Amino acid sequence: MTSKSSSTTTSKPQIVNNSEYSLRRVGRPYTKDYRIYFERSHDGVAVSPFHDIPLFHDQETGVLNMVVEVPRWTAAKFEISRNESLNPIHQDSSANNKPRFVKNCFPYKGYIWNYGALPQTWEDPNSKNPDTGKKGDNDPLDACEIGRAIATTGEVKRVKVLGILALIDSGETDWKVLVIDERDPHAEKLNDIGDVEKYFPGLLDATRDWFRIYKVPDGKEANEFALKGEFMDRKYANGVIKECADAWRKLITGETEPGVVSLDNTTLAGTPGKLDPDEVDLPPDQDLSPAPIDQDLDEWIYLDRDELDSSVSSLETSTLRILVDLR
Amino acid sequence: MTSKSSSTTTSKPQIVNNSEYSLRRVGRPYTKDYRIYFERSHDGVAVSPFHDIPLFHDQETGVLNMVVEVPRWTAAKFEISRNESLNPIHQDSSANNKPRFVKNCFPYKGYIWNYGALPQTWEDPNSKNPDTGKKGDNDPLDACEIGRAIATTGEVKRVKVLGILALIDSGETDWKVLVIDERDPHAEKLNDIGDVEKYFPGLLDATRDWFRIYKVPDGKEANEFALKGEFMDRKYANGVIKECADAWRKLITGETEPGVVSLDNTTLAGTPGKLDPDEVDLPPDQDLSPAPIDQDLDEWIYLDRDELDSSVSSLETSTLRILVDLR
Repeated sequence: MTSKSSSTTTSKPQIVNNSEYSLRRVGRPYTKDYRIYFERSHDGVAVSPFHDIPLFHDQETGVLNMVVEVPRWTAAKFEISRNESLNPIHQDSSANNKPRFVKNCFPYKGYIWNYGALPQTWEDPNSKNPDTGKKGDNDPLDACEIGRAIATTGEVKRVKVLGILALIDSGETDWKVLVIDERDPHAEKLNDIGDVEKYFPGLLDATRDWFRIYKVPDGKEANEFALKGEFMDRKYANGVIKECADAWRKLITGETEPGVVSLDNTTLAGTPGKLDPDEVDLPPDQDLSPAPIDQDLDEWIYLDRDELDSSVSSLETSTLRILVDLR
Repeated sequence: MTSKSSSTTTSKPQIVNNSEYSLRRVGRPYTKDYRIYFERSHDGVAVSPFHDIPLFHDQETGVLNMVVEVPRWTAAKFEISRNESLNPIHQDSSANNKPRFVKNCFPYKGYIWNYGALPQTWEDPNSKNPDTGKKGDNDPLDACEIGRAIATTGEVKRVKVLGILALIDSGETDWKVLVIDERDPHAEKLNDIGDVEKYFPGLLDATRDWFRIYKVPDGKEANEFALKGEFMDRKYANGVIKECADAWRKLITGETEPGVVSLDNTTLAGTPGKLDPDEVDLPPDQDLSPAPIDQDLDEWIYLDRDELDSSVSSLETSTLRILVDLR
C-alpha cells in the first residue's frame, strides 16, 4: 500500500453508475480476504471512503455523499474497515471468525434499504452523546437509502436527508440516518420524515423493527432505542450529522486520539495521515467470482416480538404496531 | 414432441436434490421460449408434471408430491403450462405480452414460500365449488411450501399438508394449500395449521396479505377470500385435495370436457391422452444463461392497505392485523 510499484497495472477499476469514484475489487467476495478499494475515476488517485470522499456533494442544497456497503435485499455484512489504510470495504466477521451474514428475519429478506456510511463523519467513542446517554460506536454515521434502485457495494450515492433514528446497539450510540437518492423518481416529493410515512407506508415501523431484532438470531439481546424509538425529523438529523462531522474533523486533524482508526488519506493537506498519492499503489482490480454461501443462510427466522426482552415496553405503542402485530 | 428422433442426444438433464425426476431446460430463462420438461431419472421416460407425477408420495402417511414453480424470494411467474403437450413449466405472460414477474410488495420480496402445484389435481372450471360459490381456475391446486430451503423451479418435493386458504382470484376459486417439505428440520413438529402460527408467528397473516395484494400493482382489484379468509385445518385441506383429485380423474379419463387442457401423458394406461413413451422425444437440456431483467422490477411497491377496496371489511379483524397495521 505504501510502496510505489513501477509495474504497469492492467486492472480496469469498476465504475458504478458514472460515479466520480471507481472500485478495485481484490480477492473473492464472501471471503475474509475480499477488499474494495476506492479511487477517483478521473485521475486514478486512491482515496479513503471514510476520509477523502466529501460529506457534502452540494453544501447549498444539503445533498450528501453516501458510500453503499450492503445493497437492499442482501445479507453479507460489508463495511468500511476503520483500521486498515485507506479504509477499504471488507466483510465483517461473525462470532466464529467467518465472513458475517445477517440472518433473514421474517418478514424481511436481508437489509431492507441500501445501507451504508456517510463519509467524513464519526461517532466518537470517547464521549457520551447528550441525546442518547451513550458513547459513539467508533464508525462513520450509518445511512439507510430508501430509493427504488438496488445499489452496488461501493457505489457512492448522492442523497437527501429525511430523518434519523437513535439506535442503541450493544450499549453504543449508533444513529441511522434515513436518506433517499436524489435521482430516485420519488425523491422530489420526499423532504422530511413525515413524507416517508405518507409515501412509503409501513417503512418506518419496519425499519425500527428490523434494527431491534436483527442480532437476536445470533444470540444477542434485542437492540434498544433512545428518544423513545421515534424517528426524528430532517432538521434534527442534520444537527446530528453536523456533530459527527465535527467529531470527524477533530479525529482527522489529530485533535482527538484516533485509537484503532486509520487516518491515512490522500487529499487532506496538513493532516497527520496525509499520504503522497504517488506513493500509494493499490492492488489491481480482480473481479473474482464469489465464494459459495452456506445453505443454512436460506433459513427464514421467525421471532415472536412479544417474547423478546422487556426493553420494548419502554417504547411508544403507536410506533410499535408492526412489532406487536407480527406475533 | 411426437416424432421420434434417431439422433443421439448429448443433453444431461438436471437432477434436483436426488429427485426421481430430471429436468430438460430449453431456451433462455426469462424469455417466452423458455420451457422446463420433466422425465423420470431412472429410465428417461418423459412425463407430464400435471398428470404423470403421482399426487401421493405415500398414501399411508398422506405425504404428497409437489412441483415447485416459483422458488421463495423470486418473482418470475413460472407455472405448469396447462395446454402444451406434457405440460412443461413456462413463464406466464404479463398484460403487455412479456414474461411476467410479480411486483415486490413491501415488506415482501417476491413469493414468500416455495410456490407450486399438486400433481393429479384440478380445479374444475365447469362447476361451482360449494364452499366458495365460485368455479375453479382450471389449474392444478396451488401449494405454498414453508420450509427452510430455497427450492428450484421444477423441483419435486415431498410435502406434508398443514392447512388451506380459500382465495378468490379474479372471481375464480383458487385454493392455496399450505405444506412443508417432510425433510425440513421443523417438519416433525408441524402437523396442522395451529402449529404454523405457533412456530412461524406472522406467516399466516402475511400469506393472506400477500395473496390479497399481489396483483394490485398491475392495476387489478385486491383479491378476496371465501370462508372469511380463515385458514382451514389439515383435515379440511385434505377434503379439498380429494375433491380436486376426483375432478382431475374425471378430466384425465375423458369424463369431463378438457377444454384447453392437454391430457397428454406417458404413464396412465387407458386414458385418452396416453402417448407411447418411445414416440416422445424431448428437446435436449440446454441450461442457458438467463435473459437480463428489467431494472424497474427492483421497485418496492408500498400499498396502503386501508386504501384498498372495501372487500377487506368483510374479513375478520383478528386475522387482518398485519394488513391494518402496515399502514
